[in-house]
Amino acid sequence: MSKGDQTRAAILDRALDHSTEVGLEGLSVGTLARKVGLSKSGLYAHFDSKEDLQRQILDTAAVRFVDRVVRPALAAPRGVPRIEAFVARWLDWSSSGLAGGCPFVSAATEFDDRPGPVRDTLVGHLRTLTETIATSAALAVQEGHLKDNLDVDQFAFQIWSILLAYHHYARLLDDVAARARAETACAELIDAARAD
Amino acid sequence: MSKGDQTRAAILDRALDHSTEVGLEGLSVGTLARKVGLSKSGLYAHFDSKEDLQRQILDTAAVRFVDRVVRPALAAPRGVPRIEAFVARWLDWSSSGLAGGCPFVSAATEFDDRPGPVRDTLVGHLRTLTETIATSAALAVQEGHLKDNLDVDQFAFQIWSILLAYHHYARLLDDVAARARAETACAELIDAARAD
Repeated sequence: MSKGDQTRAAILDRALDHSTEVGLEGLSVGTLARKVGLSKSGLYAHFDSKEDLQRQILDTAAVRFVDRVVRPALAAPRGVPRIEAFVARWLDWSSSGLAGGCPFVSAATEFDDRPGPVRDTLVGHLRTLTETIATSAALAVQEGHLKDNLDVDQFAFQIWSILLAYHHYARLLDDVAARARAETACAELIDAARAD
Repeated sequence: MSKGDQTRAAILDRALDHSTEVGLEGLSVGTLARKVGLSKSGLYAHFDSKEDLQRQILDTAAVRFVDRVVRPALAAPRGVPRIEAFVARWLDWSSSGLAGGCPFVSAATEFDDRPGPVRDTLVGHLRTLTETIATSAALAVQEGHLKDNLDVDQFAFQIWSILLAYHHYARLLDDVAARARAETACAELIDAARAD
């Protein structure tokens, strides 16, 4: 990694953490530059525009997400254990590590009404995420863990809905039972989908 | 209603609609003043601060929510029909009427990391919302529609999770099947909770 790449990676690390708290739009390039000990123009030497920075923050989040959630989940046996591992890792991901919780959830309502390249990048990552869940469910059907006629996209919608609600109950409503509620909901959903 | 009250109500109506698109923090007092044909200081004659405006926007949303979702749902027979009516009205609420979808969902990730009076107001309204769902579920248990040992707070968590995911799939992922997915998920959840 060149020195320039290292600097860019360090900026993106700090920017990702900060943006989960203030939002990608709320991110101030001046504040971020101060945090990493650069001038604003020094920071802009690494990014074409604020939009480019925002997109690269999302891409950085996606790489981290694969490292912390997807790859460890893939180490679990395929089928239901892998789905359970994914959910457990996602709950960890959203509740520790990043100051403001899952960056994709944070950005979701921020960008749903803002067409443009940042929204497109976000939608791409979120589609990958729901497709990853659907694929895991399809493998669980193949393994004979889940029923043959399972609508795997509907199943992914329902898993994702529980993860969203967890984020909401834990971070906004400060509900100490949030994790237990999410785990119960996932267990019920998986049980309802099991092959007889 | 005095002239001052009428002006304030008209400002809040426009402000609510606009804030669902740009966020409560992204709301520009200057832009809002122009939209309602007032100067910035003329607008501030009606509100103590931007924070006061943000809180009153949420209170306005809550009043509208009762009119459009809660009251019509209460017209349905108590028990499962009332829960179904609530869900159907909520899906309408989030997908029509306001430019940026449900204002409570929009504000949720915006304020989860911003302690203060606006967050407190938002949390108050969202607690009322989840309690309303839990109360409807408790009535459905009393009516013999849902099983005696139902955890009504868990049920409310799960209903709310589906509504959040609907918002996300419909508004961000532009999934044309979002409503059908949400309806299917709710129907499954209610069926699993039914008394034998």
